Amino acid sequence: MTDKIHFARIAIVGAGLIGSSVARAIVRAGVAGTLAVTDKDEAVLAEARELGFAHEFHDDAKKAVQDADLVILAVPVGAMASVGAAIAPVLKAGAIISDVGSVKEGVFSALEPLLPDTVHLIPGHPVAGTEQSGPSAGFASLFDGRWCIITPPEAVDDEALGRLTCFWEALGSKVEIMTAKHHDLVLAITSHVPHLIAYNIVGTASDLEEVTRSEVIKYSAGGFRDFTRIAASDPTMWRDVFLNNKEAVLEMLGRFSEDLTALQRAIRWGDGDALFDLFTRTRDIRRRIIDAGQDEEAADFGRHHKE
Amino acid sequence: MTDKIHFARIAIVGAGLIGSSVARAIVRAGVAGTLAVTDKDEAVLAEARELGFAHEFHDDAKKAVQDADLVILAVPVGAMASVGAAIAPVLKAGAIISDVGSVKEGVFSALEPLLPDTVHLIPGHPVAGTEQSGPSAGFASLFDGRWCIITPPEAVDDEALGRLTCFWEALGSKVEIMTAKHHDLVLAITSHVPHLIAYNIVGTASDLEEVTRSEVIKYSAGGFRDFTRIAASDPTMWRDVFLNNKEAVLEMLGRFSEDLTALQRAIRWGDGDALFDLFTRTRDIRRRIIDAGQDEEAADFGRHHKE
Repeated sequence: MTDKIHFARIAIVGAGLIGSSVARAIVRAGVAGTLAVTDKDEAVLAEARELGFAHEFHDDAKKAVQDADLVILAVPVGAMASVGAAIAPVLKAGAIISDVGSVKEGVFSALEPLLPDTVHLIPGHPVAGTEQSGPSAGFASLFDGRWCIITPPEAVDDEALGRLTCFWEALGSKVEIMTAKHHDLVLAITSHVPHLIAYNIVGTASDLEEVTRSEVIKYSAGGFRDFTRIAASDPTMWRDVFLNNKEAVLEMLGRFSEDLTALQRAIRWGDGDALFDLFTRTRDIRRRIIDAGQDEEAADFGRHHKE
Repeated sequence: MTDKIHFARIAIVGAGLIGSSVARAIVRAGVAGTLAVTDKDEAVLAEARELGFAHEFHDDAKKAVQDADLVILAVPVGAMASVGAAIAPVLKAGAIISDVGSVKEGVFSALEPLLPDTVHLIPGHPVAGTEQSGPSAGFASLFDGRWCIITPPEAVDDEALGRLTCFWEALGSKVEIMTAKHHDLVLAITSHVPHLIAYNIVGTASDLEEVTRSEVIKYSAGGFRDFTRIAASDPTMWRDVFLNNKEAVLEMLGRFSEDLTALQRAIRWGDGDALFDLFTRTRDIRRRIIDAGQDEEAADFGRHHKE
């Protein structure tokens, strides 16, 4: 199946949930001649090697990326700069350097000054994931039917952009191109603020005096448990997201809080119509997300119910 | 299987998601001699009759509850008083009158003055549900392994309380007894405020100028879609919850907003340690919810991934 090979050598830096899923999806698609994976955490690397989802496993990132035609950085946004500095000296001329980070302006401005002019830096973000972490949490179909956003710089090489687009499509994604700035605004509302308020409600609930933690857990099926899933996501990754997309997150958070204050006022003054209007409007969005194939139709996300 | 019958006649008022699930669970458990269902909405009643999950279907609530030993009110909290007034004249002496409402102080104070002294009013709340509505959304196993909270008045008849407890256990629930006041506080944080902030973030996201609604839908897998599930819940039911549990909801909402403001400040000032600390703490709660059997172990709530 050599005609499917898009890149003679691909290197993935970081073997966690996303890095290991990209590796598996590459193998499934058969788009790499050789696939090399590296991780600076010895235990993670050992686990990855045991799972065997690549041809080569390296503890030295430089050895993994040497001669690679495509390098995918799958590390927390805050670690991009140090990885970039480490691999820059050995990058092959003409290589495409991309990533999977949830913030795009910050990643580009961290990497751009560090990398040689001979490579193509084209950041990307597959909008997919689960609340679990580590190499064994990954799976090949994670990107199927999900969107991958590519945020090329203005002066991008069109051929390189085309190759990266085909790569993500081969992994099962649909691809959208936009500016890094717009990406960061869109993700602030569709991902970053939702994570922040999920983390926050779980924190609030665990700090109460009048309601015990055991009660919070027992009665979580009333709605609370839905928030605990994303509040179980990787802490390092999410700390870095908020530190690196400050402006857009604070803007969207401001709007959220303003709207919440209006709802609070409607409750205090018994304005049932205002509540009913909002609660009716929000049903439609879920319908459209299901119609767009971005969530399950089944009740309760398809959670298992014994019948 | 007559030895399983707990009540010669049970009546359920309201044939929506919860009422129809209670009916199906009663049939599955075989605990009713006769099961009568009523709904004031003609279309809902016709759908219920078509589905056939009870012995009798009545458009007149009085006919359904007449001679019933147990009456379960499965209507929105705001409709309890009018239903109570309608059925009060025909209730059988010694009957147990209970409900499934998400607010308990409000239900008790609405019903108590209306019902004859000869019946046992013992409010209850099975903490279970899905985002879907109507008779066809119900299923018999909805209450399996979930908690049902019963909030008896101080002067409760112990035998009646015991019978209601056994009833819910026969339907698959675990039962907890607490005061109505404490219930309303616990549910404010485990259910009511989570629903409110889910409705709110979905509202905020659909009102943006810089991010289109189509973008919100496309990239919802970044976290947002988790909120849309509970923001698709029944608008009438939830309006009534907030209007009838005002005090506890405002108290918990105040704490949530206070904590969110602290997080906002941590982001603005780049306090990564504060963010990391919270994000680490919240993982533990999810673990405990899964260990307690109140949510799925599988990633993404067990959402389907093609492998």
